[in-house]
Amino acid sequence: MSESYHIDGLQYANWSDKIFRQMREGGVDAVHVTIAYHEDFREVVRNIGDWNLRFQRHADLIFMGRTGDDVRRARQTGRTAIFFGFQTPAPIEADIGLVEICHTLGAKFMQLTYNNQSLLATGCYESDDTGITRMGKQVIAEMNRVGLVIDMSHSAHRSTLEAIDLSQRPVAITHANPSAWHPAKRNKPDEVIKALAVRGGMLGFSLYPHHLKGGSDCTLDAFCEMAARTADLVGVDHIGIGSDLCQDQPDSVVEWMRVGRWSREIDYGEGSADNAGFPPQPPWYRDNRDFGGIAQGLRAAGFSREDTAKIMGGNWLRFFDENFGPI
Amino acid sequence: MSESYHIDGLQYANWSDKIFRQMREGGVDAVHVTIAYHEDFREVVRNIGDWNLRFQRHADLIFMGRTGDDVRRARQTGRTAIFFGFQTPAPIEADIGLVEICHTLGAKFMQLTYNNQSLLATGCYESDDTGITRMGKQVIAEMNRVGLVIDMSHSAHRSTLEAIDLSQRPVAITHANPSAWHPAKRNKPDEVIKALAVRGGMLGFSLYPHHLKGGSDCTLDAFCEMAARTADLVGVDHIGIGSDLCQDQPDSVVEWMRVGRWSREIDYGEGSADNAGFPPQPPWYRDNRDFGGIAQGLRAAGFSREDTAKIMGGNWLRFFDENFGPI
Repeated sequence: MSESYHIDGLQYANWSDKIFRQMREGGVDAVHVTIAYHEDFREVVRNIGDWNLRFQRHADLIFMGRTGDDVRRARQTGRTAIFFGFQTPAPIEADIGLVEICHTLGAKFMQLTYNNQSLLATGCYESDDTGITRMGKQVIAEMNRVGLVIDMSHSAHRSTLEAIDLSQRPVAITHANPSAWHPAKRNKPDEVIKALAVRGGMLGFSLYPHHLKGGSDCTLDAFCEMAARTADLVGVDHIGIGSDLCQDQPDSVVEWMRVGRWSREIDYGEGSADNAGFPPQPPWYRDNRDFGGIAQGLRAAGFSREDTAKIMGGNWLRFFDENFGPI
Repeated sequence: MSESYHIDGLQYANWSDKIFRQMREGGVDAVHVTIAYHEDFREVVRNIGDWNLRFQRHADLIFMGRTGDDVRRARQTGRTAIFFGFQTPAPIEADIGLVEICHTLGAKFMQLTYNNQSLLATGCYESDDTGITRMGKQVIAEMNRVGLVIDMSHSAHRSTLEAIDLSQRPVAITHANPSAWHPAKRNKPDEVIKALAVRGGMLGFSLYPHHLKGGSDCTLDAFCEMAARTADLVGVDHIGIGSDLCQDQPDSVVEWMRVGRWSREIDYGEGSADNAGFPPQPPWYRDNRDFGGIAQGLRAAGFSREDTAKIMGGNWLRFFDENFGPI
């Protein structure tokens, strides 16, 4: 199925020439990459500076993506389009004007919260979920206006449902799975997935072992069977892949994701004290080279050729086309 | 001559609905506005945030310009395109990566220095001019690469000549006059104006009284006669207007321009202790409403209809078309 687009809805790897070559080997046309966890505005600008240098040095392999057409250009030129996103709203600090500034600089997705309470919403690890805040409502409207997609992957359920309801444009959960399949805190109940899909949103299935039933031992068959059950629930037009690949990262990076600068104590997030690092990938998805192989699993789980192409990238491409520009 | 474009190569007014309406009244299609004097990167981002709010609130009068085609769009939609520029390199701090970031945020012109020595070059008020620095050479190449125009209005002559020589793309002096006509420190010797023009650069004639022979009493005839003599020197394709209009600014703003945060003592720049504030405008150019009137003066000084249109905006439009994008 070389004619279908391959789009990964989230990665945060330790970027290198090796990884960009593996993207090409796996035929990955576009990747939404995380460029901020707990970085403030000035720090995220430094990260963009680092990416601009990568775009110069690896211009034969990657370029910065801004629109759906850049995915088509990636396919035509044999490269991978890189789309920026933030996993927390830390880069906009307490300044709504930074929403448009960050979008101009290339940010296409922003999570309203990452595990914890933010200025905008409640994260999935808080004990009480108070929903979207006063500033959160203003920022949702501003994100809608400029075309910065709301990502609720790490948010609590009430906050997620309220964001879906308040937003005038579709919302994304770029990397998570149904909690009915595997009840991790980061996975999503059917009620959330249905509300997301009804409003035109997208769910990217995660390949991060803590989100998989059976963890690192989860089989491709089990993963694709889960995809089939989700399609039964909400149809085939609102699902894709968001691998959450964290390739070649030292364990200090998973600690940065979990603790940032918000705690003096270690927080183990989805791990535990005796399993604190990155878990091993399932053998059928080691890295970008294996991306295309997911399509065979989807076909085996009963998806048609056409529907498989939608899940592998067609749905994300439609979503990119419709949601990355101003209203 | 309503078919010719009207472009002002520099203004720094106390922006208001009143001024944007005067731009429309004067038929000004595009203005290069200063958004930074001594601001660092984070401060200039706040200034861009303020401009984004103006673009929302006054969308019927102004919008952000990025390319020459935006000048044509301004004419077609009866609005004024606003192009951003910096009068010092302070916004890029000591980080060459900020050149591309600032260009992405909309900056189209950057002065390498403002009166004083900078990290990049020497300003026109220093006693010794050591030319372009090591970092200056790197930044010139980077500005060339991304399409950020080098502006040498406030630079010393050796630095200006070296920048013109080192740059692979044309350089601008957005607002200054020939020192052969009026020997202000900020005006430029014929040698500089000729070198600028030979390499395709642009000189914007300033209407700031300290740059005019006779100051506020300078007549339109004398100003246009100076334009005619400059055309004799370098031809008619490399001259335009850069009014340096500082409308409705309190005198504290001229002090900010001159002193910023670099001195504990007052520096009077082109003024003096007993004439420290903004000088009054000449009566034939009070503000944007009088912009079109300059064309009559140019015709009276002997310029053809076609050449007058070039000076009023046609030359700047060609320059915008060729120099605001990557190589």
